[in-house]
Amino acid sequence: MKKLVLVRHGESVWNKENRFTGWTDVDLSERGINEAHEAGKVLRENGFNFGVAYTSYLKRAIKTLNFILEEMDQMWIPVLKSWRLNEKHYGNLQGLNKAETAEKYGDAQVLVWRRSYDVPPAPLADDDSRNPRLDPKYKAIGNDAPITESLKETVDRMIPYWETEIRESLKKEDQVLVAAHGNSLRAVIKVLKNISDEDIVSLNLPTGIPYVFEFDNDLNLLKDYFLGDPEVIRKLMEEVANQGKSKK
Amino acid sequence: MKKLVLVRHGESVWNKENRFTGWTDVDLSERGINEAHEAGKVLRENGFNFGVAYTSYLKRAIKTLNFILEEMDQMWIPVLKSWRLNEKHYGNLQGLNKAETAEKYGDAQVLVWRRSYDVPPAPLADDDSRNPRLDPKYKAIGNDAPITESLKETVDRMIPYWETEIRESLKKEDQVLVAAHGNSLRAVIKVLKNISDEDIVSLNLPTGIPYVFEFDNDLNLLKDYFLGDPEVIRKLMEEVANQGKSKK
Repeated sequence: MKKLVLVRHGESVWNKENRFTGWTDVDLSERGINEAHEAGKVLRENGFNFGVAYTSYLKRAIKTLNFILEEMDQMWIPVLKSWRLNEKHYGNLQGLNKAETAEKYGDAQVLVWRRSYDVPPAPLADDDSRNPRLDPKYKAIGNDAPITESLKETVDRMIPYWETEIRESLKKEDQVLVAAHGNSLRAVIKVLKNISDEDIVSLNLPTGIPYVFEFDNDLNLLKDYFLGDPEVIRKLMEEVANQGKSKK
Repeated sequence: MKKLVLVRHGESVWNKENRFTGWTDVDLSERGINEAHEAGKVLRENGFNFGVAYTSYLKRAIKTLNFILEEMDQMWIPVLKSWRLNEKHYGNLQGLNKAETAEKYGDAQVLVWRRSYDVPPAPLADDDSRNPRLDPKYKAIGNDAPITESLKETVDRMIPYWETEIRESLKKEDQVLVAAHGNSLRAVIKVLKNISDEDIVSLNLPTGIPYVFEFDNDLNLLKDYFLGDPEVIRKLMEEVANQGKSKK
C-alpha cells in the first residue's frame, strides 16, 4: 500500500495577524512551530517512513517540513522544493488585513477573492516591490511567476508538478510527504478526489494536521483521513473558515 | 568567478563530551546552533548567494546547513544530501570518550587512530547495534556502508561524489555551499589543494567558520581563505587539535 501525506504549514505570523499572505515569505509563529513539531510526533507515533518529501519555496512550509522531519528523525531523506507548491498568489491584496478588507469591501467580496474558483484579485503592478518577477528567487521562472491568481490558476500550475514529480515518486516510494499551503494542497486534493470547482473552495484544511491518502499499487485511492483527534480537527477547520469574516 | 564554501558543522553534544562520534547521529549543542547562525550571518554580510547546497546524512550537518540558509534567507535553494559527505567512520571507537581512550591507550595511539592517514580503528562487529548496515537509513547503499574507516578510506568514498556532483554543480552555479564534517571536508580540501597524505592529517578545520575557495571559470583554484576574525579562527583550530590529548 502507498501513502501520500499532505500537511498544511503551521500558523504563520501573518495568519495570526489575519493578513493576506500568498507569496509573501513570512515566518512561522510560535504556535506554528509547535504545530509542526506536533505533526512530526503524530507521524512518528504512527510509524511513517517517508522516501521523499516535497515543499514550496516559502519558509513557513520549508520550516514546517524541517521540524516534522526532525521529530521523525528523518532529516536525511531527499527534499525537493518547487515554486509550484507555493500558496495561491493574492495579487494586490497581499499584506492587507483580512478583517479590515472585509469591513471595507464586505464579507461577500472578500469571500469571492478568497474562495471563488476563478476570480483573481487585482494583479500587482510591474514595478510593485511585492512583484515576484523582480525577486532573484524567481528569476529562473521568468513570466511564469504569477502577479495574481485565482484558485483555478493555482490548480493549473500545480497539476504539472503533481503529474511529473509527486505522482511519479509515489510509484517508486511507499510513502511520500508534502508540506505546503492551503491552496496548493487544495489543488492536490481536487485532483486526487476529483472534487468539483464549486466544492473545492469550501474545503478548509486545518494547519499542521497530517492528511493521509492511501492508494493501492496502481495508485487508485482507497481512503483518506486526518491523523489526530476528530474534535480538535473540526475546530481548526472552523477557525480557518471564519478568518475572512469581519470582526464586527 | 566561482566560489565554493565549506562549513564544518557547529559543535555537537558529543564534541562537547569529547567522544568519538563518526557516524553516530548526535545533535548540535547550544554552542553549535549559535555557531551555525553566526556562519549564516557572516555569509549574508559578505553577500553570498548559493545556487545549490550539499550536506551529509547526519543531522548535525543538516541542521547547520538549515540554520545557515535561514540566516541568509535562502532556505528555498536546492539541497542535496549524501552519505559520502558523512564524517569518517570511527569503527569500534564510536561512543568512547577521547580523553579516557587517551589515558587507556596513550596519546600516541589515539593520535594514530584520529590522525593517521591509513590506519583505521577496529571495525564494528556484524551484529553491533552501531553497525550502519543494520540501519534502514543506509539500506540502499548495502555493504558500501563502512564499519570503520581510515582517513584514506573517507577520501576514497568522497572523491566520486566530489567529481560527479559538487564539481559538476560548480560548473553550472557561481556559488556552491557544503556543510559537512571535519574529515569529509578534509577529503575535499586534500583534492582541491593537492595536499599530501602526511600533511592532510594535521589540517584542523574550525567549526562553523566558512572556508571560501575562489576559482576561475575553468575551475582553477585562485585563492582560499576563512571568513572571520583571524585570531578567533587560530584559537578554534588549536582547540580542535588538542581534543585528542588526555586531560591529565
